[in-house]
Amino acid sequence: MVGGGNDAFIGGVHRIAARIDDRYELVAGALSSTPEKSAASAKALGIPRSYASFAEMAEAEAAREDGIEAVSIVTPNHVHAAAAKAFLARGIHVICDKPLTSTMDDAEALEKAVAESDALFVLTHNYTGYPMIRQARAMIQAGDLGEIRIVQAEYPQDWLTSPMETEGLKQAEWRTDPKRSGAGGCVGDIGTHAHNLACFVTGLTVEKLAADLQAFGTGRTLDDNAHVMLRFVGGARGMLWSSQVAPGNENALKLRVYGDKGGLEWRQEDPNYLWFTPHGEPKRLITRGGSGANDAASAVSRIPSGHPEGYLEGFATIYNEAADAIRAVQNGADRAQAMGVLPGIVEGMSGMSFINACVSSSSADAIWVNL
Amino acid sequence: MVGGGNDAFIGGVHRIAARIDDRYELVAGALSSTPEKSAASAKALGIPRSYASFAEMAEAEAAREDGIEAVSIVTPNHVHAAAAKAFLARGIHVICDKPLTSTMDDAEALEKAVAESDALFVLTHNYTGYPMIRQARAMIQAGDLGEIRIVQAEYPQDWLTSPMETEGLKQAEWRTDPKRSGAGGCVGDIGTHAHNLACFVTGLTVEKLAADLQAFGTGRTLDDNAHVMLRFVGGARGMLWSSQVAPGNENALKLRVYGDKGGLEWRQEDPNYLWFTPHGEPKRLITRGGSGANDAASAVSRIPSGHPEGYLEGFATIYNEAADAIRAVQNGADRAQAMGVLPGIVEGMSGMSFINACVSSSSADAIWVNL
Amino acid sequence: MVGGGNDAFIGGVHRIAARIDDRYELVAGALSSTPEKSAASAKALGIPRSYASFAEMAEAEAAREDGIEAVSIVTPNHVHAAAAKAFLARGIHVICDKPLTSTMDDAEALEKAVAESDALFVLTHNYTGYPMIRQARAMIQAGDLGEIRIVQAEYPQDWLTSPMETEGLKQAEWRTDPKRSGAGGCVGDIGTHAHNLACFVTGLTVEKLAADLQAFGTGRTLDDNAHVMLRFVGGARGMLWSSQVAPGNENALKLRVYGDKGGLEWRQEDPNYLWFTPHGEPKRLITRGGSGANDAASAVSRIPSGHPEGYLEGFATIYNEAADAIRAVQNGADRAQAMGVLPGIVEGMSGMSFINACVSSSSADAIWVNL
Amino acid sequence: MVGGGNDAFIGGVHRIAARIDDRYELVAGALSSTPEKSAASAKALGIPRSYASFAEMAEAEAAREDGIEAVSIVTPNHVHAAAAKAFLARGIHVICDKPLTSTMDDAEALEKAVAESDALFVLTHNYTGYPMIRQARAMIQAGDLGEIRIVQAEYPQDWLTSPMETEGLKQAEWRTDPKRSGAGGCVGDIGTHAHNLACFVTGLTVEKLAADLQAFGTGRTLDDNAHVMLRFVGGARGMLWSSQVAPGNENALKLRVYGDKGGLEWRQEDPNYLWFTPHGEPKRLITRGGSGANDAASAVSRIPSGHPEGYLEGFATIYNEAADAIRAVQNGADRAQAMGVLPGIVEGMSGMSFINACVSSSSADAIWVNL
Repeated sequence: MVGGGNDAFIGGVHRIAARIDDRYELVAGALSSTPEKSAASAKALGIPRSYASFAEMAEAEAAREDGIEAVSIVTPNHVHAAAAKAFLARGIHVICDKPLTSTMDDAEALEKAVAESDALFVLTHNYTGYPMIRQARAMIQAGDLGEIRIVQAEYPQDWLTSPMETEGLKQAEWRTDPKRSGAGGCVGDIGTHAHNLACFVTGLTVEKLAADLQAFGTGRTLDDNAHVMLRFVGGARGMLWSSQVAPGNENALKLRVYGDKGGLEWRQEDPNYLWFTPHGEPKRLITRGGSGANDAASAVSRIPSGHPEGYLEGFATIYNEAADAIRAVQNGADRAQAMGVLPGIVEGMSGMSFINACVSSSSADAIWVNL
Repeated sequence: MVGGGNDAFIGGVHRIAARIDDRYELVAGALSSTPEKSAASAKALGIPRSYASFAEMAEAEAAREDGIEAVSIVTPNHVHAAAAKAFLARGIHVICDKPLTSTMDDAEALEKAVAESDALFVLTHNYTGYPMIRQARAMIQAGDLGEIRIVQAEYPQDWLTSPMETEGLKQAEWRTDPKRSGAGGCVGDIGTHAHNLACFVTGLTVEKLAADLQAFGTGRTLDDNAHVMLRFVGGARGMLWSSQVAPGNENALKLRVYGDKGGLEWRQEDPNYLWFTPHGEPKRLITRGGSGANDAASAVSRIPSGHPEGYLEGFATIYNEAADAIRAVQNGADRAQAMGVLPGIVEGMSGMSFINACVSSSSADAIWVNL
Repeated sequence: MVGGGNDAFIGGVHRIAARIDDRYELVAGALSSTPEKSAASAKALGIPRSYASFAEMAEAEAAREDGIEAVSIVTPNHVHAAAAKAFLARGIHVICDKPLTSTMDDAEALEKAVAESDALFVLTHNYTGYPMIRQARAMIQAGDLGEIRIVQAEYPQDWLTSPMETEGLKQAEWRTDPKRSGAGGCVGDIGTHAHNLACFVTGLTVEKLAADLQAFGTGRTLDDNAHVMLRFVGGARGMLWSSQVAPGNENALKLRVYGDKGGLEWRQEDPNYLWFTPHGEPKRLITRGGSGANDAASAVSRIPSGHPEGYLEGFATIYNEAADAIRAVQNGADRAQAMGVLPGIVEGMSGMSFINACVSSSSADAIWVNL
Repeated sequence: MVGGGNDAFIGGVHRIAARIDDRYELVAGALSSTPEKSAASAKALGIPRSYASFAEMAEAEAAREDGIEAVSIVTPNHVHAAAAKAFLARGIHVICDKPLTSTMDDAEALEKAVAESDALFVLTHNYTGYPMIRQARAMIQAGDLGEIRIVQAEYPQDWLTSPMETEGLKQAEWRTDPKRSGAGGCVGDIGTHAHNLACFVTGLTVEKLAADLQAFGTGRTLDDNAHVMLRFVGGARGMLWSSQVAPGNENALKLRVYGDKGGLEWRQEDPNYLWFTPHGEPKRLITRGGSGANDAASAVSRIPSGHPEGYLEGFATIYNEAADAIRAVQNGADRAQAMGVLPGIVEGMSGMSFINACVSSSSADAIWVNL
């Protein structure tokens, strides 16, 4: 693992996610920005091998016979590319937090590195691991909604309503800093999740968008609220709202999709429920593990219905499928095929395009920008 | 009453609304497009005086000593202006269904007629009559949300998902016909409700908007889905979605408002609940009639909490307050003051501007258009 | 109208309910306990004829050619029987608030009076007027749930959590006074509603019950919380909870019914929704006016789905059907047939039996008592 | 681990729960009823040491220097006692699935074995591990609800609505078999969870109960539905409903507690939410990790609010705290103190008493039975 030391949030999530299905053992890390902090975190977590930097780690692990097979990169965004390239170049599989990178240049360099490596690159768009999201995707593929017309995606939070970044909250500091986050603030941090999920579930691609980004927080340069209108290839239309200044919203990621035959609604905070309305019939509540769950949902479900699975289990599914994919590649499978529905470099580049298009559009007063 | 014959939906609603608080007696009508149908409807409803047309009715009632004091106009949109002018010119108060008219020319003529008349003109933006909407407005006025930053308004329906207008449904026919509805389809029929409610609750005015309207239904010329980005005077931003092709939505009007001190959420389908989150505290459920209800809510509430009031009661509040306003004016009060929070010509013109701006913006590929 | 003067709650509800469907004109009343108060209330409400007492009213109205056809009795419970008998004896139809009376003796006398009169006796178990309750009843009759096994009924409130009756609240005073309420407190006031609704919807009859009543409020002699186990004729079992001391519950009447083929759930506070689960299939949300609504629901529904009807509309349905029944009887129909599904003396006696059985069982330490 | 072979459900849950917080390594097992099956399951799970029986395992592991420190027992109920005694007798800590045993004799023998051992005995009443349950318990201890008056506990399921035990479902077979389950069916399997949770959260003890158990499923001898009235030491009253034949309920465990100062409501299927109503104020939604979460909740919470934790995380908390307790005891701490809020033999005996009292009461026509 690179990043994820004591102060970090997402590192701990990755570690639990990796353990749940018992497919990984964490044996090495460069967990912090200094050797001392890294070593302290590694010791606290019981990780045998601690390195001073990701570069040292990549080199040393590649040289060991029992070196790591895969690495998790859970640093702030601006470190993703360099770290990932170091491991990919040595054939070590990479599981990387999103968004892909902080700049388009980095993203393109990383894209190239992925293309040149034999190793897999998995991007943890973890919400795609929720069983009811898999269910929704499969239902749309099966035509249950007919032709898709409308996509409403939103991801509001409220934690930046007041200027937390000036009050010593490390999470807020780097997320509001363009150097570490990139050109998008809220739109990069969570708007990309909403965009990714909308595309994953519907199978559609955004053709162009018009965005109106705002920075409501005093002294903030990056957006903390984003309004986006979407036009998808093929004619569907959508709206996307992401916000970090909407009091009363914790992680209220929500997706609604409507076609000429039916509609679907899903909320991340109540992830075991999927609402399906075949047009002209009563709304139905499909539950994870329940009688309406399809094969796609059941395949990534661990326990019976009514016993809620949550965020960590959805995240674990990405890790579990990454393990499958790694084994498959090790056994000679084609990389693309081995990835299956796992998000990777393509989704990462798509997210970068989304961020860039939002920022470009917004600076040109919300004109339509192609992705 | 003008319009509201046997086939109509909204006429019956107006009649019940007028009865609930026992302030009106319905004694005359021109209920349909032909004298025979009008007479038949009047007879069925036990209305003593039936007229062949609104013109005849206005003239005859104005001439009677016991003539009507006020008239309800519940026709399709394109008739509103002419009918209203006929009564206003004779000093008869008008309660008119929304939107104001089908064309801007008609709207301006009507605006002039209202200005020249001593009678009141009330527009039934009925959702403003819900107690929890009054509560929300008063809370925002009192500063409970701080400075407003974000407004999310939506009004999705699903009844036009399939082409009902080609299957003999009268309601669908005139609503999808530009001659009778005006330039806006869905955006005029229900988008105006969302726009009106957002402004009513926040006290804000839309400065400009960018709209992307679609007509998904085969052969439809008017929009049946509308995506709109909003910029309010003073800096708040918003999004508005209205749709008639979103399966699983009946009348899912929803308003969410966020300021730097808190957030509010309200859904028309569950109108007795208002969700309030003071930033940094748990969400609270304020109920109509409950311990958190303020004076503004209590003033328009009839029964105790936990016994739901609904759409008809909210509508009745408009009628009840219109009766108050009429009595006040009859007793010499100033017209504007008598109107209080009642929606009238100002709100009607604002709605027309909203429709026109949406249509203009959309035809210019969603550029920003001032209201 | 008898009772329902200025201080009362339920009188106003009856008056609105009677107006909604335009079937009644309120022309006479004995609204309060003194002639002066009665006259003042009548004047305030615009009721032409005010009487000093129900006895005087019954006599005088019966003597008038244009005397009332029907009377609403909305007094505290202990007045119901005497008032109802006075009108029934003179052939005037009675619409009476529930529960039937305050004592079994009164109830039996009233039962006799109903039997001897040609007039109708309607008891306003108003919750039976909700469209989704009609829907549920029809679905169970049609076998959609299979054989009924379990009935869970509850009606918790919280308004007597603190001793309101000692703080001058008139509503609380008479409800906690055995002389005016009868032997049951909470169980009579609202437990009867839950019992009535359970029987109405399932078509079942309670065979025996075991009750544990409590009076938690200091100095209270009547129960303010009731736990009841039910055995229905035919083998179904149930539980009933009613409470007036459960903080957070306004009028949280809820009914759940389970058979060997499916289950139904309904909540009075969200009355436009009915949840139906055919065993082994996803839960469905049936809405008033929506695509899943059956004829029984549609027959008592006024406006489209998504525009909520509430408590007053459900109450109005009882008044509307009472008007139908009165007209039918006036036209020679059989009384029982004319009543249709309207609650009357049978339901009133059943409610009295329920109260008495609860009180008897509880005083004998919750032994089973036959109804 | 004892039990938990390939066919079992709860074994897998225990294994994931043990991994989540990285406190356990699974190194030995007697996973099935035959040596062959056990070995096959152990191999599939990558467990190094497989034994033919729990007896063999206890003996062998106790003899090893690197033998197991603790064992999980996840067999059907009738095996719990014998297996637990074998390990306790050798000083190996036991984590045992609930209910305690299938007979009172076994329970008492086990109680004795626990008393005589130095090892810990933890019973996985896993629902006590949910953060919002810890929050509720702490709030009640702090007096936020005032004096507790009413406890409503329920745990309905629907999976035995049809006779699954005759259709080859192993889970259903042993649960409906008195020899393996004990005297209680549904009341033992899930009623005990509701009972345990009610006591855990309120801190109250049931003094006596009256129960009406039913077996609705054809040919079923054990109850599949249970109605229970409760009287707590100190005067609070309650009701408990557990069912396995209520269509539309998956694992709808729900607890509601009301005192003279406020009320709390919690649902297992939406475990991150706790509803709190201080009497006379609006209802509040307290969320896991949100601004209203107290220390007791935060102590067992892993990720931020709005990212749902679920059933497995609640279960993992029991395992995590068991690891803490084991380390504490190994470091010389007092056993009782080390257990903290962990459920153990006391809770197990209490559950057995509850089952026995329910069965006794019901066979005597629901008379009150002391616990």
